[in-house]
Amino acid sequence: MRVLFPGRFQPFHLGHMAAIQWLLNKYDKVIILIGSGQESHSIYNPFTAGERLIMIRESLKEYDVDFRKVILFPIMESFTNKNWIRIVEMYSPPFDVIVSGNPLVYTVAKEAGYLTDQVPIFNREIYNATRIRKLMLENDPKWGELVPKSVYKFIKEIGGDERIREVTKSDYC
Amino acid sequence: MRVLFPGRFQPFHLGHMAAIQWLLNKYDKVIILIGSGQESHSIYNPFTAGERLIMIRESLKEYDVDFRKVILFPIMESFTNKNWIRIVEMYSPPFDVIVSGNPLVYTVAKEAGYLTDQVPIFNREIYNATRIRKLMLENDPKWGELVPKSVYKFIKEIGGDERIREVTKSDYC
Amino acid sequence: MRVLFPGRFQPFHLGHMAAIQWLLNKYDKVIILIGSGQESHSIYNPFTAGERLIMIRESLKEYDVDFRKVILFPIMESFTNKNWIRIVEMYSPPFDVIVSGNPLVYTVAKEAGYLTDQVPIFNREIYNATRIRKLMLENDPKWGELVPKSVYKFIKEIGGDERIREVTKSDYC
Amino acid sequence: MRVLFPGRFQPFHLGHMAAIQWLLNKYDKVIILIGSGQESHSIYNPFTAGERLIMIRESLKEYDVDFRKVILFPIMESFTNKNWIRIVEMYSPPFDVIVSGNPLVYTVAKEAGYLTDQVPIFNREIYNATRIRKLMLENDPKWGELVPKSVYKFIKEIGGDERIREVTKSDYC
Amino acid sequence: MRVLFPGRFQPFHLGHMAAIQWLLNKYDKVIILIGSGQESHSIYNPFTAGERLIMIRESLKEYDVDFRKVILFPIMESFTNKNWIRIVEMYSPPFDVIVSGNPLVYTVAKEAGYLTDQVPIFNREIYNATRIRKLMLENDPKWGELVPKSVYKFIKEIGGDERIREVTKSDYC
Amino acid sequence: MRVLFPGRFQPFHLGHMAAIQWLLNKYDKVIILIGSGQESHSIYNPFTAGERLIMIRESLKEYDVDFRKVILFPIMESFTNKNWIRIVEMYSPPFDVIVSGNPLVYTVAKEAGYLTDQVPIFNREIYNATRIRKLMLENDPKWGELVPKSVYKFIKEIGGDERIREVTKSDYC
Repeated sequence: MRVLFPGRFQPFHLGHMAAIQWLLNKYDKVIILIGSGQESHSIYNPFTAGERLIMIRESLKEYDVDFRKVILFPIMESFTNKNWIRIVEMYSPPFDVIVSGNPLVYTVAKEAGYLTDQVPIFNREIYNATRIRKLMLENDPKWGELVPKSVYKFIKEIGGDERIREVTKSDYC
Repeated sequence: MRVLFPGRFQPFHLGHMAAIQWLLNKYDKVIILIGSGQESHSIYNPFTAGERLIMIRESLKEYDVDFRKVILFPIMESFTNKNWIRIVEMYSPPFDVIVSGNPLVYTVAKEAGYLTDQVPIFNREIYNATRIRKLMLENDPKWGELVPKSVYKFIKEIGGDERIREVTKSDYC
Repeated sequence: MRVLFPGRFQPFHLGHMAAIQWLLNKYDKVIILIGSGQESHSIYNPFTAGERLIMIRESLKEYDVDFRKVILFPIMESFTNKNWIRIVEMYSPPFDVIVSGNPLVYTVAKEAGYLTDQVPIFNREIYNATRIRKLMLENDPKWGELVPKSVYKFIKEIGGDERIREVTKSDYC
Repeated sequence: MRVLFPGRFQPFHLGHMAAIQWLLNKYDKVIILIGSGQESHSIYNPFTAGERLIMIRESLKEYDVDFRKVILFPIMESFTNKNWIRIVEMYSPPFDVIVSGNPLVYTVAKEAGYLTDQVPIFNREIYNATRIRKLMLENDPKWGELVPKSVYKFIKEIGGDERIREVTKSDYC
Repeated sequence: MRVLFPGRFQPFHLGHMAAIQWLLNKYDKVIILIGSGQESHSIYNPFTAGERLIMIRESLKEYDVDFRKVILFPIMESFTNKNWIRIVEMYSPPFDVIVSGNPLVYTVAKEAGYLTDQVPIFNREIYNATRIRKLMLENDPKWGELVPKSVYKFIKEIGGDERIREVTKSDYC
Repeated sequence: MRVLFPGRFQPFHLGHMAAIQWLLNKYDKVIILIGSGQESHSIYNPFTAGERLIMIRESLKEYDVDFRKVILFPIMESFTNKNWIRIVEMYSPPFDVIVSGNPLVYTVAKEAGYLTDQVPIFNREIYNATRIRKLMLENDPKWGELVPKSVYKFIKEIGGDERIREVTKSDYC
């Protein structure tokens, strides 16, 4: 059975990694879908699709995941409406189950006729992308403990945490 | 004379129905335009274009409206900029008048050279889509009294009020 | 049961009208879908979505069709890829069957999980939109016998056959 | 050397004008890029791209700028993501430097490999588009002192300040 | 009075230049609209919008045109449907007349309610973009005599005629 | 060094496979980019992006390629204009070289500042997607020898060769 795991991964953190490991144990194949691929350089979506793709690939290597069991690609849609599920159906091998911690994603997945599944919670208060971006914004180094080592290394290399602080000074919205 | 009646109809309520009846008395033809057709499953736009199309058709039947005097279709644009008026011109039979309770729609309609008209107010404090969505969100059954019976029946059938409560738990925005 | 009848209707002709009458006898509701709604003023797509909507409505009146059994709306997609079916699902009430004389539409409909149906042939060599446009282009009045009277009247009113001859002189393609 | 000066110019004010004069002294050519060209009739983006184009052209005339040193055009993108820079590269003659008072624009410009420059500050507390729109909204005539005379004249002619007050009454957002 | 002069300008040639001079004598302002701005690197549309913008500006300088009387900008639409006229209305200062040697453009302009005008013919058999591209393709230097000197210089600088020969070898279409 | 290998892969054949093996020997990482991801069910683009993704993954497994050295994803753009290179830059990890047998892709790659490389020819007369689609269309089983075994198996499973014959009967274009 194939499971779809959609997320924005802004950034990819240890909660995502644990979810993927749990899914790899239960399903034949895990399709990791990077949503809102067209967004970047904002406080809500700081990283480009390409940067998030690197974060995830490097983490999969770090955790020694078999790449043949993982399919990974970005889409340009956000998850805020129902269309994304159609885009994925065009872009992806068929899948049976959609898994997500997000109620909107669940509702849409069920209405589109998919099975859904629930990843056991890995301390969502701690491993939480919104919280991580907030720590980056406040220049609090604690965010480094919440992401895979390779994600930490990559974000520091590209100056990603500084980018969040920079773009936040902008008065565009 | 043909009048255009644009709205999001999230959901279609008794105030809309009264407006349409008033317009049918005054004009030869009423073009009901469902805006933001691409949006759904959000607190601001819970229902798909197709669902809103059903709500309106069922209400027109309930109120015994002559379908030959009504033209009804959705567009993918929202009313927040000036482009929608051009899309409608492509999609719709020509019309002479635009009617709406919304100042932005009025401003754009006038600048595009259309006549405008004003529907007498049908108790906007009560028959108000924002208020109806709020009641649904709070699981207050009073919303049922504010919509045509067929809309109530349809929303309950598809679990529409529950959907609002579900998607609101989402942290996407 | 609801049936979807997709077409470009460039223009709407007597073959289309016969198909709709046949479908109305067999199904509860017929959803007439105007495709390539964004195209117009070309030899292949001379009429705007709005103009085609008028042609169809006037023909339905001419043939005394019960408007409550018909749902009619345009989409901006063409039928040359698979996406249009998703757009329709967003815009339309649910349907069970897709009917079309076009093999591509059939293939896509079946792959998307829909039932398909076949309208008995109404002399396709004669009632054929490509042929009608060719007659218009050659200024051969015979095209008038191939469309409902109200379509003929409407096209003459808007100078539609002349438009085809005009835009064909263009060297854009 | 060519410099790109991107802005929304909602509206074009004396701070923009001073920046352009400073840039014309330092660079061979100034490319003025009107962003968010598709937006209009909102409190944040009240004026259409065409209206902003007129404001800027009339101001350049008022300040006797050599039109041969200025290239001016709108794009449909906003500056909130990274894509706009690619659109500009398609639409514009090549440029070497990007200048902007906006940190997000800076970050993106640098990451795309461009030189950046900083216009000395011309009293940003006073000459500030957000402040000007606020004054218009409050019907405070003081906004007239913050824009070139030709901008003031043009906005009054088209009823632009009244438009802001009108569209703000709308409950769309 | 303001006149709109739409074209693809692939490339800008002496016939275009003569037309602009004729228009500048007759009208207060000439709005030169570069269409199909999103296209480039094909045999039909070899040059980017930015490159065409340079060609036109350099030619205007060569022919000593008063830049204050000219408004020049690209749009992303082609002229093959009716939508481009709405995009221009958003992007451009208002205009009264549309001038073009293309029947499709005429038809659309008239239907949209604009006046139209006709530039006296400047030997269209000779000064003709399709012919110029064909000469480039066949590496026949005669094309150089059909364009302003500054266009010739620019195209040679960027290797534009070679580009046409290169991309034509491609089997994409 | 990272190399980008763009193609439509309609279908993925032994020439593509040989190219990838050659590239994997020479470069650290090969980014396989599926273009025209939005197209399907036409004679020129019979397979969806998801189907092509499966073909490529199964072939990589068949030829025992190390998945960690390969990045694979679809984009919605075709290669017929210059924009696709910007989309890839957003979606992909950075790359240094672009390799393709297509002159248009080369021209664009060079102009965008990338290194280019040439895969030694693997009998392009034989291993050629256009030829393979033609064989499928003529129901000539020889196409099976030109693709990896897993591609053959997959296409037969989904009835892909029959689909080509079906959709070709369509009169849309």
